[in-house]
Amino acid sequence: MRTSDHRPAALIEGGAVFPHRHLTGIDGLQPHEIAFLLDEAETWVEANRTHATPDKRLAGLTQINAFFENSTRTLLSFEIAGKRLGADVVNMHAAQSSVKKGETLIDTAMTLNAMRADVIVIRHMSSGAVRLIADKVGCPVLNAGDGRHEHPTQALLDALTIRRRKGTIAGQRVVICGDLLHSRVARSNILALTALAAEVRVCAPSTLMPAMIERMGVTAFTDFDKALEGADVVMMLRLQNERMDGAYVPSTREYRLRYGLTLDRLAKAAPDALVMHPGPMNRGVEIDSAVADHARSAITEQVEMGVAVRMACLDVLTRRARGVEGWA
Amino acid sequence: MRTSDHRPAALIEGGAVFPHRHLTGIDGLQPHEIAFLLDEAETWVEANRTHATPDKRLAGLTQINAFFENSTRTLLSFEIAGKRLGADVVNMHAAQSSVKKGETLIDTAMTLNAMRADVIVIRHMSSGAVRLIADKVGCPVLNAGDGRHEHPTQALLDALTIRRRKGTIAGQRVVICGDLLHSRVARSNILALTALAAEVRVCAPSTLMPAMIERMGVTAFTDFDKALEGADVVMMLRLQNERMDGAYVPSTREYRLRYGLTLDRLAKAAPDALVMHPGPMNRGVEIDSAVADHARSAITEQVEMGVAVRMACLDVLTRRARGVEGWA
Amino acid sequence: MRTSDHRPAALIEGGAVFPHRHLTGIDGLQPHEIAFLLDEAETWVEANRTHATPDKRLAGLTQINAFFENSTRTLLSFEIAGKRLGADVVNMHAAQSSVKKGETLIDTAMTLNAMRADVIVIRHMSSGAVRLIADKVGCPVLNAGDGRHEHPTQALLDALTIRRRKGTIAGQRVVICGDLLHSRVARSNILALTALAAEVRVCAPSTLMPAMIERMGVTAFTDFDKALEGADVVMMLRLQNERMDGAYVPSTREYRLRYGLTLDRLAKAAPDALVMHPGPMNRGVEIDSAVADHARSAITEQVEMGVAVRMACLDVLTRRARGVEGWA
Repeated sequence: MRTSDHRPAALIEGGAVFPHRHLTGIDGLQPHEIAFLLDEAETWVEANRTHATPDKRLAGLTQINAFFENSTRTLLSFEIAGKRLGADVVNMHAAQSSVKKGETLIDTAMTLNAMRADVIVIRHMSSGAVRLIADKVGCPVLNAGDGRHEHPTQALLDALTIRRRKGTIAGQRVVICGDLLHSRVARSNILALTALAAEVRVCAPSTLMPAMIERMGVTAFTDFDKALEGADVVMMLRLQNERMDGAYVPSTREYRLRYGLTLDRLAKAAPDALVMHPGPMNRGVEIDSAVADHARSAITEQVEMGVAVRMACLDVLTRRARGVEGWA
Repeated sequence: MRTSDHRPAALIEGGAVFPHRHLTGIDGLQPHEIAFLLDEAETWVEANRTHATPDKRLAGLTQINAFFENSTRTLLSFEIAGKRLGADVVNMHAAQSSVKKGETLIDTAMTLNAMRADVIVIRHMSSGAVRLIADKVGCPVLNAGDGRHEHPTQALLDALTIRRRKGTIAGQRVVICGDLLHSRVARSNILALTALAAEVRVCAPSTLMPAMIERMGVTAFTDFDKALEGADVVMMLRLQNERMDGAYVPSTREYRLRYGLTLDRLAKAAPDALVMHPGPMNRGVEIDSAVADHARSAITEQVEMGVAVRMACLDVLTRRARGVEGWA
Repeated sequence: MRTSDHRPAALIEGGAVFPHRHLTGIDGLQPHEIAFLLDEAETWVEANRTHATPDKRLAGLTQINAFFENSTRTLLSFEIAGKRLGADVVNMHAAQSSVKKGETLIDTAMTLNAMRADVIVIRHMSSGAVRLIADKVGCPVLNAGDGRHEHPTQALLDALTIRRRKGTIAGQRVVICGDLLHSRVARSNILALTALAAEVRVCAPSTLMPAMIERMGVTAFTDFDKALEGADVVMMLRLQNERMDGAYVPSTREYRLRYGLTLDRLAKAAPDALVMHPGPMNRGVEIDSAVADHARSAITEQVEMGVAVRMACLDVLTRRARGVEGWA
């Protein structure tokens, strides 16, 4: 019952459907607003599979993907999403840009704005950088990941994947396991899943567990086997290479032993538990190949939902500027 | 009175409107030709602000941006300009290309030409490289900056910004201050502004002042305060990082003291003096933040005019090939 | 007589015109299938020269160029080809990508597939990598060069160039000279040209000659002068920089002396012999400038045919998915 996750459509239609100018994070979104974005994304899934009738509703609009941090797959996903909708998409590889010439972030933002972008997608290594830019520009800004802060479209695509596979998000026991301390993916997912009434468990070695994470409405575990009991969804986080040097994790081998998702471990979750990973995977570290390629793995479906979610966000955020009826 | 800057439209329409195949520099352009490009650019400014009715007049044409030198913002500006007009825009990041494999510049040019480009935009670290390529290819070539030679679209966007803010260019006292010795921006600006009858003053430390620059029709100053007296426009040049090592400038701190545009210094210019900078800025070096963010600063407007100017150039240069009436 | 190279059109139309889902190599293609692709490419040559009526038959389709190995000109050619046909083209610069983060090739392929690409163009440093990916994805895959294995579109564009200049390929004496050991260009060309009944001679220093290359139906020479006798086409291979270090070739100077194409040497070929090179050229090493710029050089025409051939391949491979009549 998908509607259990959000307020009835009629009620939403009556008021401000999505009153936010930017999407800088899941934080601050109402549950029905999250559900609205998922519903919108849902409408693109089938279209993306057939490519039957191109819908170029963003034709004439300029989308700038300003990536201050490299990210091949997220950039690709946003680029495909924008182009499918007909936008003029330009990528700014800011890692090799004026930023290096000493220009301030605000000046870069003002420059993009002055070029009359209609929507700016930003990836940045600093938490809060996206919010800073959003405050300065005259067009919607979409956060494609900033520091340890948020990665809202990742949380939306994960939520959509769960909703499609499980029918609903409310009441699902979701275990998020890995480097919670540095993970914007975990943070956005916790915000989205708790908002949609899932039961969220987090699991990490104590060195990678944020202090007072329970305040986010989750239950914290350091024992992965215990966390997995009765889990409906197991969401593994990527172990970044830079954490493998011994400061946080003794070795990748030991990490796998205690926190890697193996077939044996998966057996402790519910029989129909869903396996998820935001990618790219370290096979044999946080997830075993037998699990990644399991019939219950939704990992490639997550990637697919990513494009649909980003199309929905680009569409919704530009409706006001495009003068779509009811959004002016 | 905008028309004071150029010959009457009727007269222009009667003859060859813009008889040049390429735009390799401001040098060689007649004042009415410069004014014609500014008029054309003017028509795109409003369209860029509303994105109301996409005008894809370059649909089906291939624009290659061949950047042999990195330049995030100029590349972005040309890419947006081309895509707004509907061109198929492809970027060749030549800094990591065949050029490194030992291919000659001419061979690279012949390759781009053989792919049937309709317009090629080139950025190159060597003065004259763009002219060399222009001589070898069968399509219009646009100079996006070559060595210390020229950067014509920068001069055009600067002129357009001045014309819009001041109503006219003729008679304006424009001070250009900074590294004149290495600056193609300064060179193209001097050529354009003197052609349009502005009174141009240049100012630099003697180590960064080209010999016999007065021959370009400008007055040279080493004392910035004196140069600023009664200035209508103050155009600051970026101090390139590679000049800060002591060879040309003792230190950035001393440079700021003598050649940085501070609020105090700006007070020596005319009360309504316009502040300009081609970006990216070194805040606190050649320009203070209080000046850069001042109400009289036209710095972000320059960026906006950049897209309009590049659209105009792409449009005008491809008219012959597109068989536009009166251009065949 | 162009038709001498392939079976009559009627006969082809009756059966499966091009029954292959992917183009991973020339190996496995029937002569009439190769000729069919050349015929298709031929239809784009004139259109590319005039750009008269844009034919956006791939509108709405997503083409991903996944280049795991840098290649400016091949990428540019595929990008232009796709955009001319209206596809949404996105480049994945995999050299700086997730691959570096330890993701497996198959996972990368699954990711591209999940984004619902309609055609994937792959360049990879490992032989067989393209085939591996092709087996895993649900859309056509085009090999843009993999390791020492194949570079089929290069062979097709070379064949098209020969056919246009010589009227036919059958019976032409083609000499391929250079680093045959490491060259996928040579391999694909040998496969295509022998399939189309050319008489192929290969020539290389013994250190760069694959063992038992005669089994591919060619005659092997180490003496370039002898190989050139009566040659109708002389195809020079690029000497990669990494071969010049002494391991395979004593010095570039000595290489040029024995295997460089000079004017004197060209005189040993047939009077109307065609000169070809896949580019980028090392002028003064494997080919002299006087030869490269000779009236009989077809080098820039090869580049031009490259775009036409790639348009044909993109069009043909996506016909089934697009529901083109007779291809479903």
